[in-house]
Amino acid sequence: MKNFGFYNPVRISFGKGKIAELTGMIPQNAKILLTYGGGSIKKNGIYDQVIAALRGFNVIEFGGIEANPYYEILMIGVELIKANEIDFLLAVGGGSVLDGTKFMAAAALWEGSDPWEILSRRNVVKVTHAIPIGTVLTLPATGSEMNGGAVITRRETKEKLAFSSEKVLPRFSILDPEVVFSLPQIQVANGIVDAFIHTLEQYLTYPVNAPIQDRFAESLLITLVEEGPKVMANRTDYDAAANLMWAATMALNGIIGVGVPQDWATHMIGHEITALHGIDHGRTLCLVLPGVMRVKQKNKEAKMLQYGERIWNITEGTTDEKIDAIIAKTVNFFESLGIKTKFSDYGIGAEIIPKVIDRFEKRGIKAFGERGDVTLEDIAKILELQLK
Amino acid sequence: MKNFGFYNPVRISFGKGKIAELTGMIPQNAKILLTYGGGSIKKNGIYDQVIAALRGFNVIEFGGIEANPYYEILMIGVELIKANEIDFLLAVGGGSVLDGTKFMAAAALWEGSDPWEILSRRNVVKVTHAIPIGTVLTLPATGSEMNGGAVITRRETKEKLAFSSEKVLPRFSILDPEVVFSLPQIQVANGIVDAFIHTLEQYLTYPVNAPIQDRFAESLLITLVEEGPKVMANRTDYDAAANLMWAATMALNGIIGVGVPQDWATHMIGHEITALHGIDHGRTLCLVLPGVMRVKQKNKEAKMLQYGERIWNITEGTTDEKIDAIIAKTVNFFESLGIKTKFSDYGIGAEIIPKVIDRFEKRGIKAFGERGDVTLEDIAKILELQLK
Repeated sequence: MKNFGFYNPVRISFGKGKIAELTGMIPQNAKILLTYGGGSIKKNGIYDQVIAALRGFNVIEFGGIEANPYYEILMIGVELIKANEIDFLLAVGGGSVLDGTKFMAAAALWEGSDPWEILSRRNVVKVTHAIPIGTVLTLPATGSEMNGGAVITRRETKEKLAFSSEKVLPRFSILDPEVVFSLPQIQVANGIVDAFIHTLEQYLTYPVNAPIQDRFAESLLITLVEEGPKVMANRTDYDAAANLMWAATMALNGIIGVGVPQDWATHMIGHEITALHGIDHGRTLCLVLPGVMRVKQKNKEAKMLQYGERIWNITEGTTDEKIDAIIAKTVNFFESLGIKTKFSDYGIGAEIIPKVIDRFEKRGIKAFGERGDVTLEDIAKILELQLK
Repeated sequence: MKNFGFYNPVRISFGKGKIAELTGMIPQNAKILLTYGGGSIKKNGIYDQVIAALRGFNVIEFGGIEANPYYEILMIGVELIKANEIDFLLAVGGGSVLDGTKFMAAAALWEGSDPWEILSRRNVVKVTHAIPIGTVLTLPATGSEMNGGAVITRRETKEKLAFSSEKVLPRFSILDPEVVFSLPQIQVANGIVDAFIHTLEQYLTYPVNAPIQDRFAESLLITLVEEGPKVMANRTDYDAAANLMWAATMALNGIIGVGVPQDWATHMIGHEITALHGIDHGRTLCLVLPGVMRVKQKNKEAKMLQYGERIWNITEGTTDEKIDAIIAKTVNFFESLGIKTKFSDYGIGAEIIPKVIDRFEKRGIKAFGERGDVTLEDIAKILELQLK
């Protein structure tokens, strides 16, 4: 096991009817900015529950934070925070609303010249202050409700960049699995694969003798494979929704990633595809991952075989046959959820390859992955394999 | 899954050489009480590492906190804290030192008439303030390094009582697996079974459709079964020591217990046996658990069979045959670590039964366990089964 640090002070309130507990979780006399997305919360009753719990509080609303939250929009929110001396941000939404709110929390107190630096210079600058955040999760997927990470898109330059800071860890997150009941099936599918691939990014690397982390990751993968389809078939299956929701949170709250190598190549490449073509985040991951598994097979072989045996019960055949079967099972799982895994399915051709490479080159990125050896050449091969 | 809350803000620093990080983790200008046990840390080099990291800090020492920390001793520490206006407690030790330090942290700021009430009236009174604590763990076992619980013994009355409060959650805990290298084998064995039974208390109940929690618990059990004997055979096997240490922490930091029923009957009974006869905590658990499994078999049958299949690979035979094999495997595991599981092994006879029953009766306790149906009559049966 590698040395590690772990710190996750997010207070979780999980279960039916938990949104009503909001009242006791926000500091009294707080001046709250309530942030949300495109307005679905006004149709499914979540907005009403939140407003009922906030009775008596001083609340200003900031809706319209869309998928892949735009820096340009968020900066309007930052102005609103400053103008109204907001001292608490309550994010009600999925990963995009939560991520966008984290950025606003940091940007509002940013003392540098340009808050974009929080993202563009994340390896150099440090977030030292942020307005406290609470969240009400409306979509199990990204894990943003229990971590300090956020991914933000700049419309102007089509850049999609991430930052991470303890300062934007939510003070609390309310997870009521009943929010799943009214989700469109496509969003449930995106959430399942997002959590699945978050887990694989921290698992499908190389062994470091960390059996707890391995088995925890496998616990999440098995749960997603078993419970995901139940939610797809019946979104009012409370237990399945609860298991999916907790899996998505646990997949990216740090627990499974302590002391083990991490990859994130699939995410790095996927972000570029979303930035270029606007394809849903979860779907871009399914487009990229099979290629990464194939091109980096030798790097990942030991963990791939373990994954194949423990998740898909693949124990027969030569190593190459097993790897073929493992990749096929993984792809079939995504496809069974209605998620396509080839660029041709999205009307995208080979032109995607130089475009993605060019973007990494321009940013001076030469390689990534758990061994730092996923080169730009590898990326071209990965994308090539996934064309059709 | 049941509704739940989860909050664990303990900062973990895990790995080789991490004790040196102490310097940056304690507030500057803190007036520190350094607490420890019988002095083994002065022989194994941990004391020297801690003192080196504390150079320049204002430190007073309070050693001598023994196993099953005594209220009477801890209250002397409380006087020391008050007299010296201590504002940070650094506990260097195993579960007893950590638990004792948690009690001192709360007792020093207790505003009620008698700090014993923190324990004796734990269901009525509430800890609202405590001096901040940091810990350096020297023994993987109790999980105290990442929770807000503590068990304290009163010498005068032979009472062993627990309390739990968010206020005594350590600010940080440093876990360096190399501390295992110098542990006596008996302490390693105690730690393995303590973590194993902590896990079972949160797992061997009844199913509530919580596959993540189930599989996480199973991950810890399998790891303890596989890695525990490696540490027993070679205490300088760093990877095995690291896996044991992380298992013990994860077994009682709340993660595996969210949203599921919990038992704790074995602990309730075990505490009485330690209080009466001074037998090591982990050993009392091994004395009691097999009886609980047998007497509450019907309650626990579904999870027992799952445990048997997933941990011990027991899949053949009738249900009763399987249960027999499961209990036998569990007992054999304890015995293989050198831990005896019958009262006769400790020179204790049937007189233990009325003594334990009497103590629960005097405290007005009529039943406990995950269904609240482990009655005093059941306890008599459990102890009877374990006599010889």
